[in-house]
Amino acid sequence: MKFNKHLESIKTYEAGKPIELVVREFGIEPKDIVKLASNENPLGCSQKVQDAVSAIVKNMALYPDDSMIKLKAGLSKRFDVEQKNIIIGSGSDQVIEFIIHAKADENTKVLVNSVTFAMYEIYAKHVGAQIIKTASQEHNLDEFYDLYKKENPSIIFLCTPNNPTGDAIDAADMMSFLEKIDEDTLVVVDGAYMEYAKYADDKKAVEPKELIEKFKNVIYLGTFSKAYGLGGMRTGYGIADELIINELYKLRPPFNITTLSLEAASVALEDEEFVNKSIALNFEQMKRYKEFANEQKLDIIESYTNFVTLCLNQNQNSTKLADDLLRRGMIVRDLAGYGMNAIRVTVGTSEQNDKFFELAKQYL
Amino acid sequence: MKFNKHLESIKTYEAGKPIELVVREFGIEPKDIVKLASNENPLGCSQKVQDAVSAIVKNMALYPDDSMIKLKAGLSKRFDVEQKNIIIGSGSDQVIEFIIHAKADENTKVLVNSVTFAMYEIYAKHVGAQIIKTASQEHNLDEFYDLYKKENPSIIFLCTPNNPTGDAIDAADMMSFLEKIDEDTLVVVDGAYMEYAKYADDKKAVEPKELIEKFKNVIYLGTFSKAYGLGGMRTGYGIADELIINELYKLRPPFNITTLSLEAASVALEDEEFVNKSIALNFEQMKRYKEFANEQKLDIIESYTNFVTLCLNQNQNSTKLADDLLRRGMIVRDLAGYGMNAIRVTVGTSEQNDKFFELAKQYL
Repeated sequence: MKFNKHLESIKTYEAGKPIELVVREFGIEPKDIVKLASNENPLGCSQKVQDAVSAIVKNMALYPDDSMIKLKAGLSKRFDVEQKNIIIGSGSDQVIEFIIHAKADENTKVLVNSVTFAMYEIYAKHVGAQIIKTASQEHNLDEFYDLYKKENPSIIFLCTPNNPTGDAIDAADMMSFLEKIDEDTLVVVDGAYMEYAKYADDKKAVEPKELIEKFKNVIYLGTFSKAYGLGGMRTGYGIADELIINELYKLRPPFNITTLSLEAASVALEDEEFVNKSIALNFEQMKRYKEFANEQKLDIIESYTNFVTLCLNQNQNSTKLADDLLRRGMIVRDLAGYGMNAIRVTVGTSEQNDKFFELAKQYL
Repeated sequence: MKFNKHLESIKTYEAGKPIELVVREFGIEPKDIVKLASNENPLGCSQKVQDAVSAIVKNMALYPDDSMIKLKAGLSKRFDVEQKNIIIGSGSDQVIEFIIHAKADENTKVLVNSVTFAMYEIYAKHVGAQIIKTASQEHNLDEFYDLYKKENPSIIFLCTPNNPTGDAIDAADMMSFLEKIDEDTLVVVDGAYMEYAKYADDKKAVEPKELIEKFKNVIYLGTFSKAYGLGGMRTGYGIADELIINELYKLRPPFNITTLSLEAASVALEDEEFVNKSIALNFEQMKRYKEFANEQKLDIIESYTNFVTLCLNQNQNSTKLADDLLRRGMIVRDLAGYGMNAIRVTVGTSEQNDKFFELAKQYL
């Protein structure tokens, strides 16, 4: 059977190894496995959210409220924007998918950072769009501007803080950059880790309200998967001018969020205490990674997120290190696939980080 | 800002009114509202599923197992097919989306029944494909064959039992039809309500195993939203030859099912008792709808599903009836949008059906 030609160039995405597989493959007890590979919140999720979801498990039989009124009201209040400026996706991933399908095709180009979130490129390939990448590892807005002028992309993705490197763009620099972009180019500001950046440094804080008031061609993305501790519930959002939201809404499948996810995210927004505690723990524990990198004479990228990127020395090999750690039940992300001799480690609880330091020392 | 041209012809999908909206709009207490509009399981979902999900609410923080090994193993056992023949979607809707994006584009045609599940056409429009429809309300396979020969569609959708009419194709007739279709045309057999049809009449029972062993160009779709009582958890599946599954997998976003949905669906497969009880209740109560139609001199389409389609007489108006019922807190589906002067009513519990009969009598 013949399929659409774009599929020929797409490889099936392989996600990181789930804990279950490590258990079977290496005979390690689940309790001895530490997963610091997916930037999940090491504190789990808010007890209030757990209670609220437990209280409505019966409702699993009922289709979700497709107007998503409760969650939209919560986000509207949280960001001081109107509900018509919001679209909810099954993870912010799905909003990225809507954006690509609304604005890209085999005749257009998509501009991304050299090292950044893999899904931009994956979705762009789904429609056969051409990917243009900058050269620098960190976002360099001058490079972005030069490529924008030269290549005329239909979409530009800025990921701040960036995954998988952890660096962030100064908000003021970004605003200056956006002023130079024509209004028919859609700029995506992916703030999946913005809650962390905001806590770490005011200068990195991007406010969706300010963004969409100034620019009709910018969409801000956020997620409940990181600081809000709901990685398993697949809920993210986009905030933009109403005209953009209306177009993306045309591509949204009905009922794209589960009934329990809607409740979980709505209640998560109300428990700021949990989020603040999570972020405070994160940066307290991150100091230990900086000390560790210093001791081990490794470069560490200044991180505004809940993970650190440890750059190895020439005589070390990130793939081997990640594999050695995996065999001991410590799951981290090898960045060799991004062209970096580095590993990305989620900042865990104090105990999880202890274990990482202890094991990593043995293999470095 | 300009968007892709296909978006111009897409209207934003408007789902049925959620209970919350009826509460606010008509000032009716939630306890007095009966929703028989979305073919949800009136018994809710299995207690075992509720217990299993409650036990893992902590895991909402963790990304789902993207290999979906537990659910695939359950489906593999249930249908006696291999795991490589299975793809899981966020509802079977999402598998439909993968199919359209894999096999249709602005140069191809998609053949569907005149009255059928709306998402086939909606997704086809997303890629600009042309929709070809049969003339008859029920699936007429001769008409399908004539249009297949004439129009050369890349995809044919057969929905059996059909939504929103409830009729089903004889399995033997379908097998004969499939033998006449060339191997480059993908035929989708959507069995969202197949558990009901199988119970009601052996002749309507389509077995995915038999289907995919005989045909390399056929995909069977199933869902946990109906008989399994998990409409809110967005979990469905496709079963097909490995070559088809591999292509669809390329378009699957990672983590497309929530952590709690995977658990819910896996456990639901193990509680056949709940499913059997639900289906037995359904057909027991459906008899009452037949009696009601008889009393009211209305045509009722023989239904192999968990809903009935009541066809009104010329002096009656389905839109008005649905609206009258809505104002009394009874939500049903008006089929005027499908070109039918009819309403679709989910078969509810005995009490819910009592209320429907009582109210409908007043307005018919």
